[in-house]
This record gives sequence, C-alpha cells and structure tokens, in this order.
Amino acid sequence: MQELHTDIVIIGAGYAGIAAAKKLHEAGRSFLLLEARDRIGGRTHTQQLDCGATVDLGAQWIGPTQHHIWKWVKETNTGTFDCYDTGKNILAWKNKVSTYKGTIPKIDPISLIDLGLAIDKINKLCKQIPLDAPWTHPRAEEFDSMTLHTWMEKNMFTKKAKHLFNIGVETVFAAGAHEISFLHALFYCHSGDNMEALISIANGAQQTLTIGGTQTLLKKIAEPFLDKIRLNQPVIKVVQTADNVTVYTEDSKVVARKVIFTLPPALLNTIRFSPALPQRKAQLLQRVPMGAAMKCFCVYKTPFWRKQGFSGQIVSDTLPVRVTFDCTHQDDDYGILLVFVEGHNARDFIEQPESVRREKVLQQLVGYFGEEARNVLEYKDKCWTEEEYSRGCYAGNMPPGVLTQFGQSLREPYQHLHFAGTETAMRWNGYMDGAIESGFRAAEEVLKN
Amino acid sequence: MQELHTDIVIIGAGYAGIAAAKKLHEAGRSFLLLEARDRIGGRTHTQQLDCGATVDLGAQWIGPTQHHIWKWVKETNTGTFDCYDTGKNILAWKNKVSTYKGTIPKIDPISLIDLGLAIDKINKLCKQIPLDAPWTHPRAEEFDSMTLHTWMEKNMFTKKAKHLFNIGVETVFAAGAHEISFLHALFYCHSGDNMEALISIANGAQQTLTIGGTQTLLKKIAEPFLDKIRLNQPVIKVVQTADNVTVYTEDSKVVARKVIFTLPPALLNTIRFSPALPQRKAQLLQRVPMGAAMKCFCVYKTPFWRKQGFSGQIVSDTLPVRVTFDCTHQDDDYGILLVFVEGHNARDFIEQPESVRREKVLQQLVGYFGEEARNVLEYKDKCWTEEEYSRGCYAGNMPPGVLTQFGQSLREPYQHLHFAGTETAMRWNGYMDGAIESGFRAAEEVLKN
Repeated sequence: MQELHTDIVIIGAGYAGIAAAKKLHEAGRSFLLLEARDRIGGRTHTQQLDCGATVDLGAQWIGPTQHHIWKWVKETNTGTFDCYDTGKNILAWKNKVSTYKGTIPKIDPISLIDLGLAIDKINKLCKQIPLDAPWTHPRAEEFDSMTLHTWMEKNMFTKKAKHLFNIGVETVFAAGAHEISFLHALFYCHSGDNMEALISIANGAQQTLTIGGTQTLLKKIAEPFLDKIRLNQPVIKVVQTADNVTVYTEDSKVVARKVIFTLPPALLNTIRFSPALPQRKAQLLQRVPMGAAMKCFCVYKTPFWRKQGFSGQIVSDTLPVRVTFDCTHQDDDYGILLVFVEGHNARDFIEQPESVRREKVLQQLVGYFGEEARNVLEYKDKCWTEEEYSRGCYAGNMPPGVLTQFGQSLREPYQHLHFAGTETAMRWNGYMDGAIESGFRAAEEVLKN
Repeated sequence: MQELHTDIVIIGAGYAGIAAAKKLHEAGRSFLLLEARDRIGGRTHTQQLDCGATVDLGAQWIGPTQHHIWKWVKETNTGTFDCYDTGKNILAWKNKVSTYKGTIPKIDPISLIDLGLAIDKINKLCKQIPLDAPWTHPRAEEFDSMTLHTWMEKNMFTKKAKHLFNIGVETVFAAGAHEISFLHALFYCHSGDNMEALISIANGAQQTLTIGGTQTLLKKIAEPFLDKIRLNQPVIKVVQTADNVTVYTEDSKVVARKVIFTLPPALLNTIRFSPALPQRKAQLLQRVPMGAAMKCFCVYKTPFWRKQGFSGQIVSDTLPVRVTFDCTHQDDDYGILLVFVEGHNARDFIEQPESVRREKVLQQLVGYFGEEARNVLEYKDKCWTEEEYSRGCYAGNMPPGVLTQFGQSLREPYQHLHFAGTETAMRWNGYMDGAIESGFRAAEEVLKN
C-alpha cells in the first residue's frame, strides 16, 4: 500500500473539489485531490456522441446571478450561447395539444391565476428564509413539519395548476413535491433567487449554455494542478488522530493535516470514519436523499422544429416526456432536443431497455413535431441514479424535519474534517455555482487553521 | 487475509441474524455469521450495572401478540414478569402535576375526546393498510404525501391532546411526527396491532419483561451455533459473480453462495457493493433514517414510589423526562425507573456531559417523587445514535414518499443477496419480534434456492 503525505486532502473532483483545489493551489499550499471515478467532473459529464454532437449528460446551464461560475467562464475564455427560447412552446394536456409563449403555459384563466398566485406566494415567502440558517425563521418549525405537497394542497385549488406546478417542482428538485420539506423548498428557491428563476430560461437557471460543455470548463480550471489529482481512488476509510488524518483508498493511504469532503451527504455515509462522526452528523447523513434525474438527448441533423415555429419546449402530462428544452448550439448545427425524466418516473423509465426508452421518447415527440422527430441521428440517455459515485441527481433534498433538526451540522467541521459540496451551499444550493461557493468556503476554513 | 468458504453468510448478529442462523442450523446447512461488534445482540444489550442490577440498554419489552419471541421465551425457559402497572400515573403539564390511572391521562373532557378520537381514527385507518404491500392501499399516495404531523393538524383541535399525542408518537417511533410519513405511521401501527397496543403496557407492546434481559435470551438461542459466529467483523465490501459472492471484512474474506443482510437500510448504505446495488435499492437506502432513542436508568434500593401509591409512570411536557416506566423486577428488588428521551431531545441531551444529564433527570424526578428520588444507587444512560453499528434506534422510519416509491425494494433479493432486519418485517416492524420474522423469511428464501 502506497503511503503519501500532504497538507490537505480534497475528496471529490467535481465543481466543489476543483474550487477548493484552485484556492489551495493559488495559496501555494500542498494538497492532493482523490477522485473515485476515472474522470473529473462529478455530476457534470460532457460527452461527444458518435454522431459528433457534444452534450452535457449532467449539469449544463448557467443562470445570470451565478457569479462564481460566470467568473470561471470568463477566466477560461469559454464561449456561451443562450438556450433557445423563441417561438411557440407546447402544452400537452389530456390528449390536447396547445401552444403558448413564455414560462407559464396558456391555460384557462382560473388555473392561470391559481398557478400565478402560488408561484408568487413561494417567491415572497422564500425571500424571508435566511440562507445561512433557515432554521432560525420564526415559522421554520411549521414549514419543516409539512411536505411541499401539503402546502400545495392548502394553497392551490385547480387540478391543472397543481399539475403544472408539480412538473415545475420535478424539474427543479428531481423529486416529487411529496418527498420534500416545505422549508427546504423555500430555502432552495431563495438560494437560487426565487422559484420563477429556477423554472425560467430567460433570466433564470436555464438561461445560458457553454460551448464545449461544463465538464470541459472544469478541466480548464483544473489544468494548473492536474498533477495533484488522483483518479480511480474511492475513499474507504478516514482515521483521525490528534495530529493528523489518514485517508484510505483500496491501494493507498494519504496522511494529511486536514481533509475537505465534497460528497453529498448520502455518499459521505458510505465512508467509514474512525472515530465515528458525531451522532448528529451521522444521523444527518441518513437524511438527505439524492433526487432522480434522467436526461434523454435526441440529436437531429438540424433543429427542424424551429422552422415550424416551435421553441422545442414541451410541458406535458404524459410520460415519459414531461419537459423538454432545445439545446442546439446554432441554427445550422445539430438539432439537440433534451428530454427530462425526473423523480419516480426516472427510476421506472431506466428499468426499461434502452431500445424501449428510445422508442417511447421518439413516439411521443412525433406526436408533437410530426414524423421528422423520428429521424434522430442519435439517441443518448443517462440516469444519474445508476452512477455509483453520485447515486442520484441533481442534489440531495431534505424531507420534513431535517433542516430544523440537522441544518447546523451541514457545514460544521469535525476535528480535521471540513465539509463542502453543493448541498452545503448558501447561494445556488444544488447547482454548479453553489458547489464552487462551498469549495471556496471549505478551502478558506482550512487555510485559516 | 484469511479466506473462508461456506454456503451462506449472514451479516449481523441481532435478533434477525440469529433467527436466520437458527433456521439454517436446524436445516443442517453450512453458514457463517459476521458481526461488526464484539458481542451478539444488535439493538438489544443487557448489562449488569456496578450496583448489581441488570438492565436492558436496548429493546426490552414483549407484547402479547409477538408470537415469535414468545416461542423463544418458552424454548429458552426464560422467566418473565409484567411491567409494573399499578397505582397512580403522573401527568406533568404546565408546571402542574396531576395523577391518573390507565393509558390515557386525566385531562379536561374536550382534550380527552380529541385525543381519544384521534387514536380511534388511527386504529381504524391502520387496519386497512395491507402489511405486505402498504403502497397498494387506494389512498396510499395521499397518506404518503403528508407527514403524521400534517394529519394531526387536520384532525386534532386541542393543544393538550396534540401534545400528548406527540409524546406517544415520540415514544413509539423515537422520532417526531413531522419526520414520518402518515402512510408509514399507519403501516407501523397496523404492523404492531394498532396505535393503542403500541403505547400500552397491559395488552400492549410494553407488557412483559424478561428476567435476565433480551440479549441473554438471544445468547441462549444462539448457543447451538456460537462457533459459526465471528465477532469484530464489520463488513466492508461485497462482490458478486455469476456463481458466488465474496464478503470482505478488514482481515478476512468469506466466499459463499448466498448472503443474508440484517442491517437497517441506513447502515447497509455503508457497505460497498460490486456490482452496485440496483438504482432503486441504492436510493431506498438513502431514505430510511434511524430514530433517536435514549434510555436513562435510575436504579434505587427499592421501588420507593410504589409505597407512595405511584406506578412510576410519568408523562410530562418538560425536558428531559417525558416518559418513564417502572422496570423493577420484584417488590423487594432494586427499584428501576426507566426514563425515555427520544427524537431531537435525545440528540440534544446526549451532547451534555453525563454528570449534567444525571443531575437533570434526578432533579426532575425529585419534583414528582420527592427527595428520595435523588438517592440513586446508580444512574446509567445510553444513546443509540452514538452506536456506530446502529446509528440510531429503535428502527428506520420512513419520511413521506418512500413507502409508495420504494416499498417494493425493501425485501426484494438481488442476485445472491437477501435482505432481512426488523425494517423489512410485516408484523411488529421495528420490534424484536419483527426481526425474528424477517430472519426466518430470509432463511426460507435462501433454503428454497
């Protein structure tokens, strides 16, 4: 077993881990970064498909207020383009197809008001939740005692509005409204500006795409310290003494002064700690389950739907295609339609053979865009629940009772151990930007000590 | 690294693991049982205190319909005695102390009706939940979309009744009503007959105690196959091939045809599997957090409160002492008062030094029973959240959205892997009796194959 020595060990080479490494590198500190996978990127994964098109199988969009990642975009001279948001969106509802423009589908006025008021209420409430300590809000206990679904049942009245709201929730959390604490939902919305921003393209979390992909961007950031990154090194055990901490993988051990973890809580729970983590932290790690997100890319020769006046955006009540986006780089490039399958639908869908999944997605798209939708150059899907070193996506969500009882343990260091990862972020929690924030924060913690 | 070969490996020597082992032993099969701790017993732990009294730091009571464990009681000639349930119970509420008899405190008629109706509703509803498949109930989705707290807010109207109901919930689940799915709560109540049975002494889950303790009982059952049990063997990794499965601990590996796991889901998540567990099972393991239970034993020379006409049972709105039981073996024996601290209170309380905990408990008891309560022979407490190989107690509870989406993965085998543990039981889920049921069931699965 190889024995290495360094000042600081970072665990996980996603956005959080690379951010921490960047800070330590710039401070001239000695560090090593251990990554379980054979690649850096974590929940970002850019892939060139056989047909030649490049897609992001993981996180892809950048919103206008995500300042950390925008800084990296500029630093790396990464090109960007706006997510296509022109033309008619499609709403499929009870076997009827209609079109609309903007974020909110054109539905009957009563449902529209119902939906608008609900989003408005969430936007107003979420602003009151302190991002550094959501559990201190005067109504924290109340909000953390119910699911988001319960709040909807109390505050929304039309079936259609609830249905559309649910699709929005699934798209934002990769989980159902019945799985999530209302307090967590409010915190998460505030963390990403507000609910409207989270579901929007223009001025929202889905506004901008990068040329070359988000994993490529990260590789550029990691370029100066690639020699410090050790791939294929899943961490098994972490042993602390008064003086130092030893991190064990299958074939090596690294002795250091400090460790920065960037894994989501559910994955942190797979590492053995000696001494054991404090009971409160150990219980927290059992309580932040990962969402389930699946991305299905349909790549065409051109974005043919644009010629028909469509934006490529669909919202539907039929499975599997519930929400789609046009991720085409340029008009004359491959036409890339991204279909999201989320929450329980993702878990069900991935259990079918790929040929069936492809057929079902294309069949449904033909219903909206005509036979041309069948002629894909390539179909490629990815379910993040199948990734051993993510076990779900986009992020860990909190069921009721977790934030109020365990929120304080999220970022709290334990002896030589520090905790980052997008699940610990205050701004853009669950997003790449939040991951960067968390990596910077943890790096600052260890630099101070 | 030592290499061993056997037909079946059982992981965990608690009630579930010993039950599985018993079945395999009686069938004359080759097996090994790997236990992480230096003792068998799992979440049962009988300890003789310095003063000489014997207490169960873990599970202790047996209810009348727990047929599996009653059979073991008889098989091992274990003596039993009824939990003392005579005399006045104490209700402490807003600094006023009153007394009552029976399970339900003497409170104002409106609150009493409110409380009685709520328990009645739960008892009736829970009977409808199919124990083998709670997710098939026509209202499963609805019940699994809200917390038990939300149901209480909708169905109960008086502060006092809600408060007492909450104490009952904490005592049954070692968690708050806001952490638990209403569907899980109904399933759990039905699994243990009904809510009344779960909170009762006479005819309930707290009716009978064993002489010598429940871990001692288990040791007697394990006697014939003690040579098959390997202690201090936490399992790190499990590798399956088409033909067999290899279980790795720090210093040995065991090659077998089948494996029976008895760990609760949250602990199963700490083992590395190759190939990885199916995505649905892997996500389930992130979603069944352990409760938090703490037992504080106050041992006196005699059960002096009995002479004052008290049962030793207290229900109070003050922390830390919320619920107590008299666990004295016989009138002329040590007087043993058991104080329960549960859920969030347990996590807070254990973070204080033992001397402070002792002082706070005794101080509060003095308020009810007079100065005599200060004269303990010994104070001994135990918080199960601190146990690395349990990480909470009594059992794993399901937040909203888990049972309907993942319930089917609880008991489903995966290739050579089979899953037991009280969290997988249909009857007396969360109890020793359910653990035995689950061990028997898993043993039958592997014997059939």
